[in-house]
Amino acid sequence: MPTSPRRGLRSTSSTPAVPSGDSTVSPSGVVKRVAPSSGTPASETARTIAPRAVVARAGLYLRQLDAFKGQGVHTVSSRQLGEALNLGDAQVRKDLAWFGQFGHPGVGYDVIDLAESLRAALGLDRVWPVALVGVGNLGRALLRDRGFSQRGFQVECVFDKDPRLVGQRCEGFLVEPVERLAELLAARRIVLVVLCVPADQAQAVAHRAVEGGAKGILNFAPVALSLPPGVDVVPVDLSIHLERLAYHAHHAGR
Amino acid sequence: MPTSPRRGLRSTSSTPAVPSGDSTVSPSGVVKRVAPSSGTPASETARTIAPRAVVARAGLYLRQLDAFKGQGVHTVSSRQLGEALNLGDAQVRKDLAWFGQFGHPGVGYDVIDLAESLRAALGLDRVWPVALVGVGNLGRALLRDRGFSQRGFQVECVFDKDPRLVGQRCEGFLVEPVERLAELLAARRIVLVVLCVPADQAQAVAHRAVEGGAKGILNFAPVALSLPPGVDVVPVDLSIHLERLAYHAHHAGR
Repeated sequence: MPTSPRRGLRSTSSTPAVPSGDSTVSPSGVVKRVAPSSGTPASETARTIAPRAVVARAGLYLRQLDAFKGQGVHTVSSRQLGEALNLGDAQVRKDLAWFGQFGHPGVGYDVIDLAESLRAALGLDRVWPVALVGVGNLGRALLRDRGFSQRGFQVECVFDKDPRLVGQRCEGFLVEPVERLAELLAARRIVLVVLCVPADQAQAVAHRAVEGGAKGILNFAPVALSLPPGVDVVPVDLSIHLERLAYHAHHAGR
Repeated sequence: MPTSPRRGLRSTSSTPAVPSGDSTVSPSGVVKRVAPSSGTPASETARTIAPRAVVARAGLYLRQLDAFKGQGVHTVSSRQLGEALNLGDAQVRKDLAWFGQFGHPGVGYDVIDLAESLRAALGLDRVWPVALVGVGNLGRALLRDRGFSQRGFQVECVFDKDPRLVGQRCEGFLVEPVERLAELLAARRIVLVVLCVPADQAQAVAHRAVEGGAKGILNFAPVALSLPPGVDVVPVDLSIHLERLAYHAHHAGR
């Protein structure tokens, strides 16, 4: 946990997109969960954590810092860090201020120091155990993917509802019955869950996960989940990547 | 194509992360392709297209505008649009300026107009045919996913190298031999390709796709692709979503 002072949570109550005191997330993932509307004081935690969009950009800064490091660059300015992501230097400094006080005026940021501090602030200086629910095609593909574990996320538990799969090994993992989801998450203190179940089962499975103490759900099911405050959902929206490519193809002409 | 004036391409040559005149993309996707270094004039197209990070944010603005629309909101300010994504209003205006001149001082943006203009500027006011290569677990999962087609991306062609799959139907699609990739892309004028092949085949398959006229490649293989300028690659990095969840779980405590 970083000890540096953090900014308070900026009010988002003027944004019509945010349903107060709710954690419903649109399929696009742009509607954020916020603390209950004024009158109910936000918890201490809620007041000091960075908003989702800022955390997402922090992940991009981290990757860019790692790229700088790989190129032997020792020091960067907020301007250089911003240029790589086409963000203004003021925006970069504002974003980073959520995670601590970094850098020296006129000198910039030490690439390695900033990456390490950011990693610690983001909670990425440890291995996170992850549970995966649903070993259909997508679930199997994700279990084979080494990308997660390379970045510190270790699948420890795999679930399915199909009795033909339960008790079998899948990509090396023993498949547990989804009925045991809450019990095993709690027992193994797993708070991150990857949901690869069909849309019509996602809400019920997510509820079981929350019962077991899940705090974060990566949702591949094409459905919006409604969950209690304190549980974060990231819906995976692959079409946004195709949109980026379409823009460039559109302008490249043919 | 939008006819409004656009900003020129800002120089990124001072950013050490950018390999000049190259389109190599790191697995994190943060290293951008740029026009060849000074001396070689950038093409007319290269000078007027928005950088990748800006296009990615445009996709988020679009989703937020759709959310506003769903809530019956008619007009928004750059501040409100920014707040939803925790971006400053200056950053929002700067980003939108890449795509045209929108909004009225003191009034803000008309939600429906801005969404439509942005959609047109991004090339999303049409259906894009897409080819998918590799019908393993991930490929099959993506073929089943209705999310792509809901946002205007239609899979029209499916390829694999496995002779047991070629000629068969997979999720309703006839599987073509990967040897015909270039030929069929060109014949059907498909410029967007989703790559779901193993890492050791990705580079070779991507080259075939480029031969067939591919302009954009969504790369699920955990390997960096090196492709000629003018071809855009988006590597899919799912761990960034888990990082976001980890941050919140880290601070929610347990």
